[in-house]
Amino acid sequence: IQSKLPNVGTTIFTTMSQLAVQTGAINLSQGFPDFDGPQALREAVGHHVMAGHNQYSPMTGLPALREQIARKIARSYGRQVDMDEEITITPGATEAIFCALQALVRPGDEVIVLDPCYDSYEPSVELAGGRCVHVPLALPDFSIDWQRLADALSPRTRLIILNSPHNPSGALLSRDELEQLARLIRGSDIYLVSDEVYEHLIYDGARHASVLAHEELYARAFVVSSFGKTYHVTGWKTGYVVAPPALSAELRKVHQFVAFCGVSPLQWALADYMAACPEHVDELPAFYQAKRDLFCDLLAGSRFTFTRAPGTYFQLADYSAIRDDLDDVEMSLWLTREHGVATIPVSVFYQSPPAGLRLVRFCFAKREETLRQAAEKLCRV
Amino acid sequence: IQSKLPNVGTTIFTTMSQLAVQTGAINLSQGFPDFDGPQALREAVGHHVMAGHNQYSPMTGLPALREQIARKIARSYGRQVDMDEEITITPGATEAIFCALQALVRPGDEVIVLDPCYDSYEPSVELAGGRCVHVPLALPDFSIDWQRLADALSPRTRLIILNSPHNPSGALLSRDELEQLARLIRGSDIYLVSDEVYEHLIYDGARHASVLAHEELYARAFVVSSFGKTYHVTGWKTGYVVAPPALSAELRKVHQFVAFCGVSPLQWALADYMAACPEHVDELPAFYQAKRDLFCDLLAGSRFTFTRAPGTYFQLADYSAIRDDLDDVEMSLWLTREHGVATIPVSVFYQSPPAGLRLVRFCFAKREETLRQAAEKLCRV
Ligand SMILES: CSCCC(=O)C(=O)O
Ligand SMILES: CSCCC(=O)C(=O)O
Repeated sequence: IQSKLPNVGTTIFTTMSQLAVQTGAINLSQGFPDFDGPQALREAVGHHVMAGHNQYSPMTGLPALREQIARKIARSYGRQVDMDEEITITPGATEAIFCALQALVRPGDEVIVLDPCYDSYEPSVELAGGRCVHVPLALPDFSIDWQRLADALSPRTRLIILNSPHNPSGALLSRDELEQLARLIRGSDIYLVSDEVYEHLIYDGARHASVLAHEELYARAFVVSSFGKTYHVTGWKTGYVVAPPALSAELRKVHQFVAFCGVSPLQWALADYMAACPEHVDELPAFYQAKRDLFCDLLAGSRFTFTRAPGTYFQLADYSAIRDDLDDVEMSLWLTREHGVATIPVSVFYQSPPAGLRLVRFCFAKREETLRQAAEKLCRV
Repeated sequence: IQSKLPNVGTTIFTTMSQLAVQTGAINLSQGFPDFDGPQALREAVGHHVMAGHNQYSPMTGLPALREQIARKIARSYGRQVDMDEEITITPGATEAIFCALQALVRPGDEVIVLDPCYDSYEPSVELAGGRCVHVPLALPDFSIDWQRLADALSPRTRLIILNSPHNPSGALLSRDELEQLARLIRGSDIYLVSDEVYEHLIYDGARHASVLAHEELYARAFVVSSFGKTYHVTGWKTGYVVAPPALSAELRKVHQFVAFCGVSPLQWALADYMAACPEHVDELPAFYQAKRDLFCDLLAGSRFTFTRAPGTYFQLADYSAIRDDLDDVEMSLWLTREHGVATIPVSVFYQSPPAGLRLVRFCFAKREETLRQAAEKLCRV
């Protein structure tokens, strides 16, 4: 059979997690916590499953949960969104991104992605008949290279995919950068898909510059987020998209035939928990910053070099002082097999990795004990 | 914004369920039970959520659940499938069908659908750049019209979508019909997507002729099923696809970027329950046949005419003796508003409904009390 996605193999996240299991390595590769979501949230699932909330939710998502999302958005970003017209709950942020892309991209369209970027973007664009134009972020801080971005725009540009906080680097877009982007695309009909799944994982007192808080950009944007990241339950596969009514209507046309709806008892539980504990999201920065700082403080005793991640639960590290002879895929395999710590090579997030890239990504969404054990191994490398 | 799916509105299932809520009508429209899944299954969810099974499952699905599916397939259809190479768990059968279609359909391809058919097929084909060729099933029994099917095949035919037990009619494909289909497409490279989500809802002692039990057809097929239908938990959005290794590999390339994986604690709970209670599926026919027969016995006192559904949890009924002046959409609205019973008009499952079609669909996946109340109202019509 001829493949629709001839360039796609198994994702690096599956490959590295499997290798970690096989070798018994500590898994700092695929991004997921090794601790659990809040007890009250998990108890609420049991409650709703027993209370009979097990049939289809509305296609757009449970109203009670959409209401909580609208409240959170008002609180965090000062925007009033219409929960019926602008919020759609999806089985995970990946499905949200896929549906947004399917809703927008037509055969022959070009989509700008900023490399390094998450691996689902390009196949999703290709399945819609579009083509990705890769614009590398500027090193070492993974900021937007405005000249290259401007040069990449064409009459075929349908949309730009943003991702802040940025996976794998943790970089943040600033409010000024959003402003600059608004100037760049003003007058065009270019849309945005803004992947903000790490919106609440932001450190050192920074604030998230959400597209939701930018009037002009939001008018042409799909903003995607994830309960899995925010509530430490990546296996619940529940996320959402916020977009102006006309864009939401197009997204829903796709979503209703891709998935129809998300999982009912999880939506009930999330609605309860968000209502009971709105401060959860405010406590996340300190919670994760402590993990980042523990890991980085310990890693300071190694030969890895790094700048602390401004956001996400990922920390990049340069290993050129250790094994400059290995590319990052080789290094990740070597670290996993010989040193017992599984990582993700950063080059896999690129179409054309910069020559001499010597970066691996560690996920620090782990218990203190896990981080200590991993750092100890990494200090021996 | 130009729509990718200009012909798509809100699904009839959403429209009618909303109308039922607004008017207080008994909702026999959208297909879902008004009773709950097995208590032990629901308790298992609470257990696994508390036991920490809340992170990503493997992309292909939890091994323990794939193992149970393989056992069930061996028991029900006598086929040994390789749980690692041939089974993929998805967030619902809708996502499974969508991914199978995306994996196969290329721009310009034709896909044969047998009308009336489920409403997700055509938009899913269109998003992949294909075109549906609609072949009406023969009335009154909704059997395949072999001449029309043969006439519809062309060099562009990429695949045929089968659906047995059939929504909305409940009709079953027989083993002989599968054989005839095999003869028809022998030597071509036409694929099959076989939507068998109602596989265990089969009455009057009939047996389900699964594509899984047909060697030659299975070699070119994606077979889709649903835990929601089998375990009375439509809101869990968990289903699966079985396909030969090469086809499964292509499906997974799509699935890993549409959804990545299904919900972990639900997969754990389903695996436990299937292991503890394999007889659940054997008890379903009697369980649902009792509901069908109760509803039909009561409806015999009305002016609706019908033949009992051979499968699914849907019962069609002809209303021409009651209001021959109304088309079926008008009739469904009238029944909902004036008589307090929400139904689904059958014409919405057609591209070109047969002239004079006077059929509505009732969902009988309801408690005895609900069926009695609904039937009482219907007898007064
Ligand atoms: C869906 S597996 C990938 C998880 C993740 O977002 C990452 O590790 O980057
Ligand atoms: C996903 S809503 C539709 C449920 C169903 O399968 C039907 O009513 O036909």
